[in-house]
Amino acid sequence: MKSRETNTKDKLLFTPGPLTTSATVKQAMLHDAGSWHFDFAERVHWIRNQLLAVAELSQAAGWEAVLLQGSGTNGVESVFATCVPPGGKVCVLANGAYGERMTQMLRLLQIPFSVLRSNENELPDLALLERTLSTDPSFTHVAAVHCETTTGLVNPIAQIGAVAHRHACQFILDAMSSFGGVPINFESAGIDFLVSSANKCLEGVPGVCFVLGRREAFLANEKHARSLSLNLADQLRGFERNGQFRFTPPTHVLLALEQALREFWAEGGVPARHRRYQLNHAVLVEGMQRLGFQPYLPPSLQSCLITAFHYPTGPQFQFPEFYRRLSDQGFIIYPGKLSAAETFRIGNIGHLFEVDIRALLKAIGDVQHELGFGSEPDHPPAETIGGLHAIPLIL
Amino acid sequence: MKSRETNTKDKLLFTPGPLTTSATVKQAMLHDAGSWHFDFAERVHWIRNQLLAVAELSQAAGWEAVLLQGSGTNGVESVFATCVPPGGKVCVLANGAYGERMTQMLRLLQIPFSVLRSNENELPDLALLERTLSTDPSFTHVAAVHCETTTGLVNPIAQIGAVAHRHACQFILDAMSSFGGVPINFESAGIDFLVSSANKCLEGVPGVCFVLGRREAFLANEKHARSLSLNLADQLRGFERNGQFRFTPPTHVLLALEQALREFWAEGGVPARHRRYQLNHAVLVEGMQRLGFQPYLPPSLQSCLITAFHYPTGPQFQFPEFYRRLSDQGFIIYPGKLSAAETFRIGNIGHLFEVDIRALLKAIGDVQHELGFGSEPDHPPAETIGGLHAIPLIL
Repeated sequence: MKSRETNTKDKLLFTPGPLTTSATVKQAMLHDAGSWHFDFAERVHWIRNQLLAVAELSQAAGWEAVLLQGSGTNGVESVFATCVPPGGKVCVLANGAYGERMTQMLRLLQIPFSVLRSNENELPDLALLERTLSTDPSFTHVAAVHCETTTGLVNPIAQIGAVAHRHACQFILDAMSSFGGVPINFESAGIDFLVSSANKCLEGVPGVCFVLGRREAFLANEKHARSLSLNLADQLRGFERNGQFRFTPPTHVLLALEQALREFWAEGGVPARHRRYQLNHAVLVEGMQRLGFQPYLPPSLQSCLITAFHYPTGPQFQFPEFYRRLSDQGFIIYPGKLSAAETFRIGNIGHLFEVDIRALLKAIGDVQHELGFGSEPDHPPAETIGGLHAIPLIL
Repeated sequence: MKSRETNTKDKLLFTPGPLTTSATVKQAMLHDAGSWHFDFAERVHWIRNQLLAVAELSQAAGWEAVLLQGSGTNGVESVFATCVPPGGKVCVLANGAYGERMTQMLRLLQIPFSVLRSNENELPDLALLERTLSTDPSFTHVAAVHCETTTGLVNPIAQIGAVAHRHACQFILDAMSSFGGVPINFESAGIDFLVSSANKCLEGVPGVCFVLGRREAFLANEKHARSLSLNLADQLRGFERNGQFRFTPPTHVLLALEQALREFWAEGGVPARHRRYQLNHAVLVEGMQRLGFQPYLPPSLQSCLITAFHYPTGPQFQFPEFYRRLSDQGFIIYPGKLSAAETFRIGNIGHLFEVDIRALLKAIGDVQHELGFGSEPDHPPAETIGGLHAIPLIL
């Protein structure tokens, strides 16, 4: 069992990010780099190439990684602001808060869109997507979220991409909390733009996001971008001109990302990270079920990245008190974000290992004992789960 | 003479930012904070109040500091995107690259604007501003840059603000490279929105910017914001609702800003920082003139923050070689950004002290000797300067 080496007494973060990172990733920030300096430009170039390599893409094949200052939301909005042409129209698939967020962006950017909603514990209705795109040929883009962090649900990107391309639409994927942690095949999923962030499965620190896409697709709508800060085409031109960010980059965050990518490859890339997260998740769910907590999603829809659990019933369970007591023991969990059910969430990505999951489970058992809420399942399991072997090891 | 304590062997950054920061500011980033955690929300609240305190403003008097992910450019664009109403029109004063950048933002946001340009070594034409606002009552905002980092020029904000207010326009000030390092009187300058960044005179690290303004002014156009990521009203509502960022904040960058603000007050606030930068600047200019370099601006227009110097004439001076040799000695200077003259720039903000300026001057003298370019002034001084006593100690 590998153990953590964070070298701090910080509470462990079982959240969808910012995450617990390695000590060496944080130590990479102990340097002030000149953003105009040629050495820094070379490091940014290396990072951009490594991000493509994580996706098994390359510049030689026409792909580019464009880094952008800010949170992942900046990245998603930047694709809409830069890459949807005047007269374009976006079909958004939403089954959680991050799909809904896309509609907020499109509304403010005044880009025409439709949203196809499904319940937070259901996959999108692909037949409806097919009919929608058939009926209205003005759609130019389909946008979806890979792992809906609201619940941990995994959307079927290969099927979505296939429908989109059948109707000559580009496919925009928010892969914020999945990129690097689960295999993503650009070709089979037909992804045109993928957005993610340094502080998710790549285990860097927050402050920079990135978009992967084809060079020609970034530049196609160059003359019609709706924002300067969020202009991916202009930033790509900037990198091509002199290797630099157009505006002051978060230099320390980028040094941390460089180190995080080195550690990503040292661990064994996507397959190794995926295995670690699958193990973390399996141990978590098995342990939580033993303590009487039930996952919100059936295993067939559940990612290995973050899991929503139902509140236990009964007055002894109050989330704020549960949260505070776990925090006092050094464990930060995450509140729910569901509209239709009372849940809390536990993430298992970041620099976390089986030993950390087991330590969290022990703390949860202790708090449960202190507060006196039930150790029997309050909700019937969504699907019969016999043990570890039944935990899905997909995504 | 205070000395540096950066505890690293990093090259010193004589740039407009990212800057050399203290070791303790960087060490504050050695922790992973949960962005949803109540402790972090309290720290963000403290930072927001301290930013107001730097400006001698307060929430009690109706002011707010809204933090935003990304570079300072995100901050400037966020004011335009959020606070200019439909039907609004902006008059931009431009005498350098940062004023021009405002026009690029406004064009992409499709906000009507006019730009009043003056030369990069001249103050804006306030009579023209007066006539422009008189002639066209549809102007709602005047936008200007405090210290034009292109040259180091200081624009006369009190006079600009007075003209703006006489014509019922709000005054948007890009004070990126001046806030915290020079006194700014909000009331006498009539500033409605001030934008700055963590990594300038506050000596934090890059990755977060902020806007200071009146609560009512942030919210006045709430229903008509042009972007989600850049929506200051929505972010202010978020802080008021639960103390949190709407989207993942750069937690490590914020921990560094918290530490930087502590060190800012420990040094003695704006007056002390201003004195240190004035001394750095005076020593720099006096030393550079002794070596034969001439500042681009006359002292009456020059800030104490960053200085543009003419290239020496003659073939022995090639900027790339000059830059590389200084870099080899551990000093990073900055290229020029002027359209009309060949210059390079030297910043003297950040965790830099007289000893560092003198070390840079010695290195420049050595490189000059190695490369054999002239030690006699190649350009006549812009104004007669007898010695240190003649270096302006204003801004």
